[in-house]
Amino acid sequence: MIKVTVWNEYRHEKKDEEVIAVYPDGIHKCIADFLEKEGSFSVKTATLDEPEHGLTDEVLDSTDVLIWWGHMNHGDVSDEIVEKVHNRVLRGMGFIALHSAHFAKPFIKLMGSTCSLNWREGDFERLWVVSPAHPIAEGIDEYVELENEEMYGERFDIPTPDELVFISWFKGGEVFRSGCCWNRGLGKVFYFRPGHETNPSYHIPQIQRIITNAVKWAAPKTILDEILCPHAKVPPEERRLADM
Amino acid sequence: MIKVTVWNEYRHEKKDEEVIAVYPDGIHKCIADFLEKEGSFSVKTATLDEPEHGLTDEVLDSTDVLIWWGHMNHGDVSDEIVEKVHNRVLRGMGFIALHSAHFAKPFIKLMGSTCSLNWREGDFERLWVVSPAHPIAEGIDEYVELENEEMYGERFDIPTPDELVFISWFKGGEVFRSGCCWNRGLGKVFYFRPGHETNPSYHIPQIQRIITNAVKWAAPKTILDEILCPHAKVPPEERRLADM
Amino acid sequence: MIKVTVWNEYRHEKKDEEVIAVYPDGIHKCIADFLEKEGSFSVKTATLDEPEHGLTDEVLDSTDVLIWWGHMNHGDVSDEIVEKVHNRVLRGMGFIALHSAHFAKPFIKLMGSTCSLNWREGDFERLWVVSPAHPIAEGIDEYVELENEEMYGERFDIPTPDELVFISWFKGGEVFRSGCCWNRGLGKVFYFRPGHETNPSYHIPQIQRIITNAVKWAAPKTILDEILCPHAKVPPEERRLADM
Amino acid sequence: MIKVTVWNEYRHEKKDEEVIAVYPDGIHKCIADFLEKEGSFSVKTATLDEPEHGLTDEVLDSTDVLIWWGHMNHGDVSDEIVEKVHNRVLRGMGFIALHSAHFAKPFIKLMGSTCSLNWREGDFERLWVVSPAHPIAEGIDEYVELENEEMYGERFDIPTPDELVFISWFKGGEVFRSGCCWNRGLGKVFYFRPGHETNPSYHIPQIQRIITNAVKWAAPKTILDEILCPHAKVPPEERRLADM
Repeated sequence: MIKVTVWNEYRHEKKDEEVIAVYPDGIHKCIADFLEKEGSFSVKTATLDEPEHGLTDEVLDSTDVLIWWGHMNHGDVSDEIVEKVHNRVLRGMGFIALHSAHFAKPFIKLMGSTCSLNWREGDFERLWVVSPAHPIAEGIDEYVELENEEMYGERFDIPTPDELVFISWFKGGEVFRSGCCWNRGLGKVFYFRPGHETNPSYHIPQIQRIITNAVKWAAPKTILDEILCPHAKVPPEERRLADM
Repeated sequence: MIKVTVWNEYRHEKKDEEVIAVYPDGIHKCIADFLEKEGSFSVKTATLDEPEHGLTDEVLDSTDVLIWWGHMNHGDVSDEIVEKVHNRVLRGMGFIALHSAHFAKPFIKLMGSTCSLNWREGDFERLWVVSPAHPIAEGIDEYVELENEEMYGERFDIPTPDELVFISWFKGGEVFRSGCCWNRGLGKVFYFRPGHETNPSYHIPQIQRIITNAVKWAAPKTILDEILCPHAKVPPEERRLADM
Repeated sequence: MIKVTVWNEYRHEKKDEEVIAVYPDGIHKCIADFLEKEGSFSVKTATLDEPEHGLTDEVLDSTDVLIWWGHMNHGDVSDEIVEKVHNRVLRGMGFIALHSAHFAKPFIKLMGSTCSLNWREGDFERLWVVSPAHPIAEGIDEYVELENEEMYGERFDIPTPDELVFISWFKGGEVFRSGCCWNRGLGKVFYFRPGHETNPSYHIPQIQRIITNAVKWAAPKTILDEILCPHAKVPPEERRLADM
Repeated sequence: MIKVTVWNEYRHEKKDEEVIAVYPDGIHKCIADFLEKEGSFSVKTATLDEPEHGLTDEVLDSTDVLIWWGHMNHGDVSDEIVEKVHNRVLRGMGFIALHSAHFAKPFIKLMGSTCSLNWREGDFERLWVVSPAHPIAEGIDEYVELENEEMYGERFDIPTPDELVFISWFKGGEVFRSGCCWNRGLGKVFYFRPGHETNPSYHIPQIQRIITNAVKWAAPKTILDEILCPHAKVPPEERRLADM
């Protein structure tokens, strides 16, 4: 059982009618629901306005893969929690940043760059698969079409992805590296572009399939307690020769 | 003229006789001296105990490539200066982290991982060139030998380098990715392993050549004032069709 | 069930007493035996002197992962078979090149470079894990020690690996990128260094574990019948607008 | 002086009125002309129907960077010449494959994959810069627009580029990795998408700038006579200890 925690800012969905119409119980609930149907995940949710943003030590310590959606209030996430999330990724936890989480504190801290981009609301998006053999693209055809999405365009200021899975085409004329994988410490990080709060992208089966695949891909075999910087006092060669 | 600033913690060299014997004027002065001989660099130095660690806005604003050596006192570097250095790298400035600067705050902030490693003082090092056509390896033979160096061993907890130039062999039995290149924002980052404060590595012509090469490689064409996240209000397609 | 074919040149083991002592039934048989014990593989073997080198269409068409060991007689492998193997890798089959197969025709054809290296018989090797979270390193400690192995040293003339899993240390003073992953077409390729014919490396449990892990990593979800270069006569945008 | 040879199939331009109208002296002449204006290149041309395709040993031995345009007649290029070109790239020569040269024999041999793609004549292309600090993008704005071009779309079956500089947007709905860098042996390889024979892309100043930049980027410091696989009989450690 892969233990997944879906984190959401969960503020748009409390006050914006347009968003409520699409995600009445919050984006996190929508994502948690389709992940649960998969059968091999144990899924929790957590949101910004809960104590410790819902990411208590207990919750984090039992999370294999953390999914993150945030938008207007990145600045309200406490640095202490960001530090804990970042540290757990480096020790092995998977981290999936969705859409506007390109500016989420833990994502920026993992990347080391600004993660800025061009944007515009209201466009048509076609997500092309450029790595068809990648596990995150399993079961996905040549492309996925999204009738209504916010446009994110290059230049996306990220470190070169270790693996590039999707590139998006927008009707307005832009392209975007929409599915990007990185290794950080012992953890795997995936950025996936779609998911504007007023668009029903997380209700689309192919998008659900991609996120489900990403959870499996990002799940660690083990999560270390600590990453040390050890004094290797006795050289391995000395140890070896002593054993002979 | 490439404008280089050599930053050094400069504390070992004030109090430790063994270090003073090797670098009487400080590691920064030794590096600045051989860089100046190259003829095409304009070289400054800056140290931890100067006001603003010597990295005032005026100094930073006229730095194309920043070289960084630090060891015992990474924690004394103010977060405000780290923020400025990090931001300038993303806007285009080259950054070269030497030896124990694997734990320097700006380097860790650029990498996003712990940058931890195994270590042990007192070993013999042979630096092998694995990318002989890389500009940083220009003029370097198959390998460089360093009679006395601190050992740094894998696993080095870094993001996969965009380019790997050197791998070290240590007599004690370890290996290490010793010359690593990354892109961050518009800036180029190079980590170079040798340079323990009690060892004369920066006096060795081949090591000087490598650092000189690295400065040329890391020098930017331009440094932006700002990296924006622009609202691309008018789609390029709309603009194009309006122009027709 | 992953269908594995272990291919071996199988000539040393027929005439060289020293090799017979280590691999009485051939290297392929030794590898096939430990893979079969794993329980989830269906394992065949094939050798150079069989008709079509044992790689008939029937055998290839039922192979998910092909392991390749060759040394003295790379030139005796027919170009027609090489073409078929290469083509099947691009369509999805996994390919694992062992030791002296760095010069095997299918490997060179997949890489596009000379794949040359430095070499010397009779050394001690310590294989360091540099990507501990990689599936091929699962269950392996910090390093594996091999008492007797041929030395392969840098510069190894390969394209930059997509993932670097192991770096070797040799007592004689060299280093080597010993575990390298690439994507080619839809297929995954792994090069693994150890396995000189006079050394018992494939009898060592940790080496067996690595090769077993590599088979699982390289196994495809699907193997295409053909990779086309299709005329996309009707643009997706035209199709979309027609559907509206 | 960088010595550039521009190779062209040069058959379309002899018989197809539509192509003659755009490139009356051949694509090679158009490219050679703008490269010569740059001032720091010494430029030759060579074409398929010359003896040895114009690539005699004398010509190749004095070529630092080879530019290649071919389309209908890849199969007419002799394997012997392909072998020589491939070998010289591995020894250091730069290689720039343009447009339909994605299927040129030397390019495929360097890549090791099929290099297939989707295609369709008659589209609008917008080339986006994704690596603005890369030397090949120097002097290029956010994007370049090409009013008429053949569409090439993903999935482009290439090894993951070592550096990705441009991604194209096509009006018909596709995206494409249009500017890709690889290292092969000691040589640098650049693939650049635009340049259909009936479209005037090589007359466009920004496209000329990109190809000019690419020549500078691909130019080697040295070209080796041979890449050896040397028997390192005496271990470096033995040599070192003997010298002490």
